[in-house]
Amino acid sequence: MLLGDIPERNAKLYPDDLALLDGEAAFSFAQMNQRVNRLANAIRALGCDQGDRVAVLHENCFQYIEIYFAAAKAGLPVVPLNYRLSQQELAYILQDSGARVLFFGGKFQPLVGALRSNAPQLTSYVCIDQDPGDSLRYEDLLAAAPLRKPEVRVDESEIAVLGYTGGTTGLPKGVMSTHRNIISSCYNTALERKLRPGLAFLNVPPLFHAADTNSMFTFSFMGGTNVIATTFDPDLILHQIQQHRITHLLLVPAMILRMLDHPNFGQYDLSSLQVIYYGTAPMPVEPLRKAMAAFKCGFSQTYGATETFVPITILQPEDHLPNGNQEQIRRLASAGREVIGVQVKVVDSKGNEMTPNQVGEIAVKGNNVMKGYWNKPALTGEVLKDGWYFTGDMGRMDELGYLFVVDRKKDMIISGGENIYPTEIENILFRHPAVADAAVIGVPDENWGEAVKALVVLKQGVTASEPELIEFCKSRLASFKKPRSVSFVSELPRSGAGKLLKRELREQYWKGWERII
Amino acid sequence: MLLGDIPERNAKLYPDDLALLDGEAAFSFAQMNQRVNRLANAIRALGCDQGDRVAVLHENCFQYIEIYFAAAKAGLPVVPLNYRLSQQELAYILQDSGARVLFFGGKFQPLVGALRSNAPQLTSYVCIDQDPGDSLRYEDLLAAAPLRKPEVRVDESEIAVLGYTGGTTGLPKGVMSTHRNIISSCYNTALERKLRPGLAFLNVPPLFHAADTNSMFTFSFMGGTNVIATTFDPDLILHQIQQHRITHLLLVPAMILRMLDHPNFGQYDLSSLQVIYYGTAPMPVEPLRKAMAAFKCGFSQTYGATETFVPITILQPEDHLPNGNQEQIRRLASAGREVIGVQVKVVDSKGNEMTPNQVGEIAVKGNNVMKGYWNKPALTGEVLKDGWYFTGDMGRMDELGYLFVVDRKKDMIISGGENIYPTEIENILFRHPAVADAAVIGVPDENWGEAVKALVVLKQGVTASEPELIEFCKSRLASFKKPRSVSFVSELPRSGAGKLLKRELREQYWKGWERII
Repeated sequence: MLLGDIPERNAKLYPDDLALLDGEAAFSFAQMNQRVNRLANAIRALGCDQGDRVAVLHENCFQYIEIYFAAAKAGLPVVPLNYRLSQQELAYILQDSGARVLFFGGKFQPLVGALRSNAPQLTSYVCIDQDPGDSLRYEDLLAAAPLRKPEVRVDESEIAVLGYTGGTTGLPKGVMSTHRNIISSCYNTALERKLRPGLAFLNVPPLFHAADTNSMFTFSFMGGTNVIATTFDPDLILHQIQQHRITHLLLVPAMILRMLDHPNFGQYDLSSLQVIYYGTAPMPVEPLRKAMAAFKCGFSQTYGATETFVPITILQPEDHLPNGNQEQIRRLASAGREVIGVQVKVVDSKGNEMTPNQVGEIAVKGNNVMKGYWNKPALTGEVLKDGWYFTGDMGRMDELGYLFVVDRKKDMIISGGENIYPTEIENILFRHPAVADAAVIGVPDENWGEAVKALVVLKQGVTASEPELIEFCKSRLASFKKPRSVSFVSELPRSGAGKLLKRELREQYWKGWERII
Repeated sequence: MLLGDIPERNAKLYPDDLALLDGEAAFSFAQMNQRVNRLANAIRALGCDQGDRVAVLHENCFQYIEIYFAAAKAGLPVVPLNYRLSQQELAYILQDSGARVLFFGGKFQPLVGALRSNAPQLTSYVCIDQDPGDSLRYEDLLAAAPLRKPEVRVDESEIAVLGYTGGTTGLPKGVMSTHRNIISSCYNTALERKLRPGLAFLNVPPLFHAADTNSMFTFSFMGGTNVIATTFDPDLILHQIQQHRITHLLLVPAMILRMLDHPNFGQYDLSSLQVIYYGTAPMPVEPLRKAMAAFKCGFSQTYGATETFVPITILQPEDHLPNGNQEQIRRLASAGREVIGVQVKVVDSKGNEMTPNQVGEIAVKGNNVMKGYWNKPALTGEVLKDGWYFTGDMGRMDELGYLFVVDRKKDMIISGGENIYPTEIENILFRHPAVADAAVIGVPDENWGEAVKALVVLKQGVTASEPELIEFCKSRLASFKKPRSVSFVSELPRSGAGKLLKRELREQYWKGWERII
């Protein structure tokens, strides 16, 4: 099965059902498949040969989904661009991927103008939604293209999505996700989430990120409607849930809390909601209890990676028992258990499997695991070994297979021979009433190799001193884990997906040292 | 993913849940996985190299399921034998498959004794459940074998099941179903049937047949319990549903009706039933209405083939509306719509797709489609073309993709240039109050090429004449379709799966004629 089979099948089985909804734009599956066919033919007519890359730079919109499916039918990998990256980073990705076509939103026109001189291999610029200037106009392309299904033979081992990742650990690298990888992940996701036809998914996180894209593909795979949210505005999201009878959406915990705190929360009818998926981190017990009581729907956590086209483990709605026993409460801090079709193990540095509850690196096997990094065989060889993908995440698994993600391997601090996981310390700091944001890193130390350092953003109008925060940690942690120093900053660098860019933080402290950070 | 991953995963995620239940024998998933590991090691220790075939001759029993999974872990294809075949046919299959090991039930001891001289390549005989005589004893093998997971690297393209089929159309042929084929079918089946963990499936049809085996694998894949029914006894099945809180089972329509007619039907608590799956043919409206009212559960029809490890189309529970409108009633005669992951088309003799409602051959594409027929490349080439499997079934598809299976291509009668589908005439004959069983075949005719002939089994104590039955058909069919002759017989030959063996019926009439029947 190929990604392009999804709109074909839906057009056959559910021709009149709603496929896409984005503001005033609404398309049935029959219409969507016709538009996707036209677009696929149009892209090929721009001079793209099978395998040529097609980049997209825009916020969420229905055309983004059309481009994903049209490129799949045309046999062209999609390079979804993170619009929060700098011009230099985008230029690097365009060059590295060798994209031939760039689809972009009108609001990115100035950025695209600046990129033109840096991307000589780009031969076509298509403006999705505004006056295109000297670029091509999206709807003109469609109108001029034939309606028939493009006659392209795509193999399941061909790349469907080339998503760039890794701002946190050096130059972005292109993750080659094949048709088979993505379809496998759709099957796993649909089964674990118990999806059936007739659902409505609201796309809130950006479609350049695999987390939302996996959900978007999966809901379409199951004949569901994809509804577009362009930006995260709590009031707007609540309004869309009510208006479009949304059944599922994917958020990060902070978004859930912001919606909950919205003064108009109680005015909306949210009874259509079945499950809210959340990712990037577990939800603490108190906010979860509050959210479950307020939203009156299921909650489910997903842990995954771009390299696995997302789900690795899922903490199911039935695992969300914030009023349960000690064991059940303890599991709320886990990322759940391996999804069907995916094997997870925790290994030491030699690749030997750890016993339950011992911390080691998390490794994953399954048909969803990427083909490799684009043009980076050495890096690929470092993370793909013997069919297993080594995530770079440290974690432990309990006797029943619940996985607790401890930290990024690269963020681990080794101080005096002890392994220290910054996230543990950050979680303590977050409990302090004055702390708005916090990052813990290792800095050079002549005696201990590394020393624990905390970088803290204070809440407005509140103060806290360095000794006070160190003491706060010391009283709640083994002493060797407490920060040796605390610096106060106004902001912490975070990636488009909200991840702390610890590499940037470490850089200033490690200049002149030999350790690779 | 491989078949052997299923017991591994269940042992990890649901160690204490019931995996297998067969009379007094009950095993948790942890126990099942241990027994499967032991058996896998034991079979390899019998001298089997990877890829060697292992045959099984027995009625349904928990060991049958253990053998399927153990052989999968050991990298050995299973040849499940139809115990209703003759000694000659079984000898042929054992020789053709080159099986090294034969697992058999004690009740088949005499048959196995007779087969020994015809199967020189068989090196080990293992008796599953009784005093083994000069064979090996199943439980002894397990007890002596190590508990660890066998260290065998199996590729998903290796054969997991080599199921023989085709008694209706010549010598049996071995269908090579790979791990990937079967796992794909499990995914498709689980998604379409909306399965979730914690279900209990009662295995009624024989485990030598792909229909039940696909369900068995799928329920295990989803962490469900497999319960064994050794024979079809209506009272016993009803008792098992009640006692073991069975949620799903697979039957043929005749079995459903026999259960319904059982005098004790009303005494059983069948409230655990969620869906009864049925196959081989649609259910007529009246019996279906009666069955739905009595069983108070969902009904779902599956159309499939051994070559696709079963589901091709499914008529869903929500399609079963015997009190619905004309369109809904009409669809009850269909086999439903293509399952997810499977493409279905109806083609003419040149392979061109037919327009809706035109009759042609049914062709299927999907990862569940077999690798081919064992040692029969020419035959494989006839049915596998360009990724499509040509089923040999004739059918038509309506505008919304509902498939109506008309007949076997090989059973089609061509009389005076007209295509006549025997099933249509048989269905009319079945409506006559005196007819217990009926088969319609083409017999040689000097003027018309073929002439329509009916073979009829009358109900006990009732009579009907040849002219009466011909007139009965003529008044309900286009005249050219009516039988030219009717013969009364005491029984019709049927295969293990209940299919009419029309080839046998035709043989007597076509002796001396050149047409290949």
